Amino acid sequence: MNLVAVDWGTSSLRVARIDGEGAVVEERRSPRGILGVPAGAFPAVLRESCGDWLDLPGALCLISGMAGSRQGWQEAPYCPCPAGFDELARALAWIAPGKIALVPGLSVDFLGTPDVLRGEEVQVFGAMDLLQLRDGVFVLPGTHCKWVRVAEGRVLNFATFMSGEVYGLLRQHSILARSLPAEDGALDEAAFLRGVRHAQQARSILHGAFSTRTLALFDRLPQPALPSYLSGLVIGDELRTHALHGLDVVLIGSPALTERYALALRGLGCEARRLGSEATWRGHWSLARQLGNRP
Amino acid sequence: MNLVAVDWGTSSLRVARIDGEGAVVEERRSPRGILGVPAGAFPAVLRESCGDWLDLPGALCLISGMAGSRQGWQEAPYCPCPAGFDELARALAWIAPGKIALVPGLSVDFLGTPDVLRGEEVQVFGAMDLLQLRDGVFVLPGTHCKWVRVAEGRVLNFATFMSGEVYGLLRQHSILARSLPAEDGALDEAAFLRGVRHAQQARSILHGAFSTRTLALFDRLPQPALPSYLSGLVIGDELRTHALHGLDVVLIGSPALTERYALALRGLGCEARRLGSEATWRGHWSLARQLGNRP
Repeated sequence: MNLVAVDWGTSSLRVARIDGEGAVVEERRSPRGILGVPAGAFPAVLRESCGDWLDLPGALCLISGMAGSRQGWQEAPYCPCPAGFDELARALAWIAPGKIALVPGLSVDFLGTPDVLRGEEVQVFGAMDLLQLRDGVFVLPGTHCKWVRVAEGRVLNFATFMSGEVYGLLRQHSILARSLPAEDGALDEAAFLRGVRHAQQARSILHGAFSTRTLALFDRLPQPALPSYLSGLVIGDELRTHALHGLDVVLIGSPALTERYALALRGLGCEARRLGSEATWRGHWSLARQLGNRP
Repeated sequence: MNLVAVDWGTSSLRVARIDGEGAVVEERRSPRGILGVPAGAFPAVLRESCGDWLDLPGALCLISGMAGSRQGWQEAPYCPCPAGFDELARALAWIAPGKIALVPGLSVDFLGTPDVLRGEEVQVFGAMDLLQLRDGVFVLPGTHCKWVRVAEGRVLNFATFMSGEVYGLLRQHSILARSLPAEDGALDEAAFLRGVRHAQQARSILHGAFSTRTLALFDRLPQPALPSYLSGLVIGDELRTHALHGLDVVLIGSPALTERYALALRGLGCEARRLGSEATWRGHWSLARQLGNRP
């Protein structure tokens, strides 16, 4: 197998060549995310970044991420949950049959309200394979954090939390910005955990967030600790809504973010495993293998 | 009694002359909120707006709002809850003894986390007097909405929700802004109530807010209805945290805002009474009467 795995996001393009055993032979990265690619230029940009790999014998190219969105190369319609490897493989949008395909995102419908993800599905399936887990909760922190519930090897449902974005808005543009220091600085673990705990009592970030201001007003928390406290409030509000008892919890993302979520979860009595970008490439490889296994 | 009631906020100054029966004889308004008054200029600005009233025989001037904050005329330290009329009267910060006083705000401490309000205390006491209510929940919507619990004629505790501000941030500065129309338009009641209901299921605005985007993505809600839906999500998240069963609920504020909250409350099976600016002047009058009754 010569697998060309492509993770094509909004602001960056990452490609990897992966061998039959799932080992990454070579990896490249470029700033040409879909927002920097004019309509019609996607084939040329892909060739530019890994044309040499595409010409290898039997090369298979799987592209995940926003390249499959309405603003990307071509829309790959969301695959509805519950969805396993097999549903995902069947829902691939083939650009060059048998050679280049867009991986669809997933959609879910909760009492008439939809939710979507795109790109994270590959990471979740990769993490399942890496950890040999068929059940659990997979959390992908970021601007829009995804909580993905997996049961019997399939994605049952998931939910999006605008945690990273709301933190940024409160930190930069709300009245709290006046109390906060110019820079976030290093994480203050005690202040962060205090925020996580207060979020459980406040029961809404709309209420909890205001305590960042009042704690500053009454000098109950030193200014450098306030960003960590606010971060704890936001992540704590997210965690408040999940019942994780007895479930395996896996965090996937950058070390700085997964460390913060692991800390918050530990503060609430839950141990989580952590994975980084290895989950992405493993997901492409697992999907390619799934394609090979199909009759 | 010649009462000069002053409501001195961040961006505006309102004054009223009130007679012994609580009737407003005359009312004036100026844009000279505390942010527009240089340090030391507060006495002159007050004279400018109502010096003629201050010179009336036996005039008593009570100033509520941000004029009593650290950024205002002089800091009137918060009066800790539980607090009734009497505690508030005792905590007045006299600028000219027996003649001009700043009304302090209220503070509360919930398991080590403080909350504060300033100006709303006068509205709540005014509403209690107008409605002859000694128990209930008083809600003052706005940029920072205050939920005030009153029992046996005293403010037991309260909580601040940054609802108005977070709505503005999500509406103007988040990814949702791309889906929303340029103008809010008239309230779409059905979409608003759908947002209120979804907020009860979503259990966190961090999650609920994202549905504004997905409903637009799947054409499940027309674009002009999206701001009403988002407003319902935010107010619904606020309402979610309150147990109001069996309590009198009073909304105090501008008609547009209290109407929206009344609608949301009705959607959740709770009838609320509504008051406007009459509560402010009645609060000043009640407080002045309380001062007169003191031994």
